[in-house]
Amino acid sequence: MADIKYEITEHLGVLSESPKGWKKELNFVSWNERPPKYDLREWAPDHEKMGKGLTLTEEEVTELAKIITHHQK
Amino acid sequence: MADIKYEITEHLGVLSESPKGWKKELNFVSWNERPPKYDLREWAPDHEKMGKGLTLTEEEVTELAKIITHHQK
Repeated sequence: MADIKYEITEHLGVLSESPKGWKKELNFVSWNERPPKYDLREWAPDHEKMGKGLTLTEEEVTELAKIITHHQK
Repeated sequence: MADIKYEITEHLGVLSESPKGWKKELNFVSWNERPPKYDLREWAPDHEKMGKGLTLTEEEVTELAKIITHHQK
């Protein structure tokens, strides 16, 4: 697999941590030197390895927060 | 790959739709007949194929909504 260049440009928050130290995090991540996007993903300790996740736009996170808040009311 | 049994037990909301009709959605999904969890994922039209995504617990979505809301203030 070809290398993917990425940089976590801002740590927004940690959702949870597993017994093995993997964390689910919301960050701003720049992929292949493109402008950073929201990124919801599992990370190994010290961000050494990345797990499953997906990128989100500003509009998508706004909508996501609305859906969650509405559902949990 | 072995079959994974899943059932979308509740549609919570759609975050966005791509030009090809794939949607990013937050749903409750039951995997292999286990109790449903929150599931944030991309889906092809009519949920025929699933894309990248991850499951989340009640605590994780609560935390996620907080992080987003705090960040967007």
